[in-house]
Amino acid sequence: MENNIHILLVDCPDEKGLVYKVTDTIFRNQLNILKNDEFVEQEKKHFYMRTEFSGDFEEAQLIYDLRNILPSPANLKLSTNQRKDIVILATKEHHCLGDLLLRHHFGELNANIKAVISNYDSLQNFTEKFEIPFHTVSHEGKTREEHEVEILKLIGTYNPAYLVLAKYMRILNQGFVAHFPHRIVNIHHSFLPAFIGANPYKKAYERGVKIIGATAHFVNENLDEGPIIEQNVIRVDHSQNAKDMAKAGREVERNVLARSLQLVFQDKVFVNGNKTVILE
Amino acid sequence: MENNIHILLVDCPDEKGLVYKVTDTIFRNQLNILKNDEFVEQEKKHFYMRTEFSGDFEEAQLIYDLRNILPSPANLKLSTNQRKDIVILATKEHHCLGDLLLRHHFGELNANIKAVISNYDSLQNFTEKFEIPFHTVSHEGKTREEHEVEILKLIGTYNPAYLVLAKYMRILNQGFVAHFPHRIVNIHHSFLPAFIGANPYKKAYERGVKIIGATAHFVNENLDEGPIIEQNVIRVDHSQNAKDMAKAGREVERNVLARSLQLVFQDKVFVNGNKTVILE
Amino acid sequence: MENNIHILLVDCPDEKGLVYKVTDTIFRNQLNILKNDEFVEQEKKHFYMRTEFSGDFEEAQLIYDLRNILPSPANLKLSTNQRKDIVILATKEHHCLGDLLLRHHFGELNANIKAVISNYDSLQNFTEKFEIPFHTVSHEGKTREEHEVEILKLIGTYNPAYLVLAKYMRILNQGFVAHFPHRIVNIHHSFLPAFIGANPYKKAYERGVKIIGATAHFVNENLDEGPIIEQNVIRVDHSQNAKDMAKAGREVERNVLARSLQLVFQDKVFVNGNKTVILE
Amino acid sequence: MENNIHILLVDCPDEKGLVYKVTDTIFRNQLNILKNDEFVEQEKKHFYMRTEFSGDFEEAQLIYDLRNILPSPANLKLSTNQRKDIVILATKEHHCLGDLLLRHHFGELNANIKAVISNYDSLQNFTEKFEIPFHTVSHEGKTREEHEVEILKLIGTYNPAYLVLAKYMRILNQGFVAHFPHRIVNIHHSFLPAFIGANPYKKAYERGVKIIGATAHFVNENLDEGPIIEQNVIRVDHSQNAKDMAKAGREVERNVLARSLQLVFQDKVFVNGNKTVILE
Repeated sequence: MENNIHILLVDCPDEKGLVYKVTDTIFRNQLNILKNDEFVEQEKKHFYMRTEFSGDFEEAQLIYDLRNILPSPANLKLSTNQRKDIVILATKEHHCLGDLLLRHHFGELNANIKAVISNYDSLQNFTEKFEIPFHTVSHEGKTREEHEVEILKLIGTYNPAYLVLAKYMRILNQGFVAHFPHRIVNIHHSFLPAFIGANPYKKAYERGVKIIGATAHFVNENLDEGPIIEQNVIRVDHSQNAKDMAKAGREVERNVLARSLQLVFQDKVFVNGNKTVILE
Repeated sequence: MENNIHILLVDCPDEKGLVYKVTDTIFRNQLNILKNDEFVEQEKKHFYMRTEFSGDFEEAQLIYDLRNILPSPANLKLSTNQRKDIVILATKEHHCLGDLLLRHHFGELNANIKAVISNYDSLQNFTEKFEIPFHTVSHEGKTREEHEVEILKLIGTYNPAYLVLAKYMRILNQGFVAHFPHRIVNIHHSFLPAFIGANPYKKAYERGVKIIGATAHFVNENLDEGPIIEQNVIRVDHSQNAKDMAKAGREVERNVLARSLQLVFQDKVFVNGNKTVILE
Repeated sequence: MENNIHILLVDCPDEKGLVYKVTDTIFRNQLNILKNDEFVEQEKKHFYMRTEFSGDFEEAQLIYDLRNILPSPANLKLSTNQRKDIVILATKEHHCLGDLLLRHHFGELNANIKAVISNYDSLQNFTEKFEIPFHTVSHEGKTREEHEVEILKLIGTYNPAYLVLAKYMRILNQGFVAHFPHRIVNIHHSFLPAFIGANPYKKAYERGVKIIGATAHFVNENLDEGPIIEQNVIRVDHSQNAKDMAKAGREVERNVLARSLQLVFQDKVFVNGNKTVILE
Repeated sequence: MENNIHILLVDCPDEKGLVYKVTDTIFRNQLNILKNDEFVEQEKKHFYMRTEFSGDFEEAQLIYDLRNILPSPANLKLSTNQRKDIVILATKEHHCLGDLLLRHHFGELNANIKAVISNYDSLQNFTEKFEIPFHTVSHEGKTREEHEVEILKLIGTYNPAYLVLAKYMRILNQGFVAHFPHRIVNIHHSFLPAFIGANPYKKAYERGVKIIGATAHFVNENLDEGPIIEQNVIRVDHSQNAKDMAKAGREVERNVLARSLQLVFQDKVFVNGNKTVILE
């Protein structure tokens, strides 16, 4: 996307003529539609629309005009193709973090990594090679709540649009998650809903599956059950043990996480209850 | 798609407000848009739009209204979700033909197979199991022109919307092809543009590739160079000789042909010069 | 594989020199090894070996010689590249059955379909087009046991090497399964272990997954938990409802089932507890 | 692979009993076979065998014993699972180099990167973050021969087992290539043999393909025609222009290059004329 592109996300109950009404409103505001995608979810009769447009406008006026023609309740979000501020949480594994730092370093992430936070310091030297602040917030000797509050305070100083869990191996309490509704992206090391919870590669090995995978999803209050953004898989066979599968799986994990962030940071992902609608 | 769904395909030079203008026109004709997809090809600044709608309307009026608001030259096509009439051309290989006859038999092809024509009779008994007329038009002792004219006359009696070349192993003259512009779908047994022409699996084996594929495309006057509709691939390795690759490739061929016909028969494929635009 | 190729499957506790000892024994019997694959499962230190060879030999002598050099307990199986006799069980869905009948008709299944048995008669006319006996064994008004005994008797008249469940939608009791240890191949319409049990596509739709799949496995006493032979997947998105996913999934189901049978009927699949070892 | 594993690669004309003879020889040298794979290329009747074994032995004795039982001419190579020394050549693109530096940094490449050489200095700072020597050898004002001789001298100081062309965008003369027979791995940004030469993504875009790919191959005297080690692909569509395809393709390039190096550095790749035989 070029500079100065605006992105409008609309979702509301469906009714006749919505595409016409929204494009008409944009047209009357003297704006130029560059790309338009919409989708009607038939089960709930819900309308989703993503529009890229260019031109000068007053945000309050456009929102006002749109509210006037949209059925209630309507969700409206105006964004741009500017980079989002993010904070990454990691534990000890480097493959997802390394991939994101590399993409960021070369300007390919569509995000500004403001900081990396981990409960261990093992990735500190590596992270700092890329001139990104690294904070170790150990969980030792703290309750989960104490630990999360400490991290929350730290995150607060960076005011990120999104949190990315790049193999952050601790479960987050509902109290933490509630601060960032649909704003935490996690990479889970299995093809959900197969192998929910810990040690998915060991479970995959023991079950003798022929394909393993990874899942990027928004985090909600239920572990491994948030809206799925992206999944992918890789073939395995009997010659691979759990450790080999974990190694092969890491390639998928980093690719799936990067792909999901590309979608999220370009405002292409709507949340529909426990699912996503992706308009590219 | 349910019954009585209408499909409008529009393509024309791009200009500001086209989505608005088209949806406005449909709206003013009291029609209900069910699904709308559009795409602007930036290089040529060309606009493509596919709209599914329901409701009663007079075709001439709608076309007239649309012509009034669209820039020239505009291509307009009105279709429905009814089955297309097709004729299949084959030679001796059964895998694509068999797959299509099976899908047709169980009502899954979105097409009526009016007849199968081959230059050999080896697939006749098989085809007739499915109560489909089979015509052998041998090429022996005939010039290419004589043979094609004979086939053309036969096809003419069925008046098909599309011809499907299900492993028809003869090259078609430009004179034949010109009768069916963008209405002949061929399955080529390689991942085009690799291995154009005859014996692609032998060439793939000799080159030592690790992946082989198949390509479904519209036929134009240049062999294997028409607009590509769909491609897919399968992994191979050193243990497979040319015959093994051909066998593995046949699985891809039949799946790619079926997938491409699903797109074509649902009016989801635009031709853009030597390429396709697919709006699903 | 050409005619008159013999296949030896050996599995036993691993020890030093087994490849040497087995190939030495084959060599001393004046036989010619065409292909040899072996695998040592490190966790249980178990040895698997599959050897294709040609030449004339006395079976009792070769087995005797092998038993003399192999550690106990050793499983030995001698087979050939001749077609296996099979019986197919189906219910109402045609896509897997149709695919198998087509491959069989054109000599590509490496099996003789002796009969098709269903609890409904809806696929009878179709099956009989291919000159395959079709038996309807209704389950209505019978206990599960009565129904299964009736089917068992019928199967007994065909003495098949394998049973293929081509979308047979009834659960089989342990008493039935025990008649055919590692000789029943089932196609399950999900990417196991995700979505065990009924209605997997509905569950996949409700979970909002981005990839669906199918699993071919040997049937054992635990539903959907037998050794997995083959799996594959296909991408889906938010625009597909449960019915659309089921339709897309059927393409995967038939391809996965066909692929798994290709492996089984060429004696390439060992069972290792709840897993498979596949030596190609 | 654990420490102290030895790898024997044998290829020679096929004859009866070779697996037996080689394993017998290893056995008589008191060595323990851990893994054994072999393949007979039927067209040329050529035998390939890769054996992993452990134990103490005298190399000259083992080679002598093997030569005694193998038909001539036989290629024999003894290696270990120790890391190979490599030198990377790059130009300006970072994605493949970055990926390799990351894997190397975390000990996952099975190689020691001794140095990175480029004809530009743009990747110097980045490379040096990882404490790897970086040499700029500009081609400006030099003939191709002068430039290559300068690079050759520099490479000579590192005595690498392999050269890796990580998007090195200059054609290498036969004189350069001849120094490293089957020891230069290149990543080509297309699915060879489609789009040989420059600007493959532009060509792919203009041809309207639906899948693009990348190819890792050994470099020989003919541009883009050396033995293929690994290939992979990614789907594209009409909405992607040449630049978008190049971006998507970079993901495939880095994954294919990494995968090919994993195979090469574990001595799993034989060269068979213009093809590879890969025994994993």
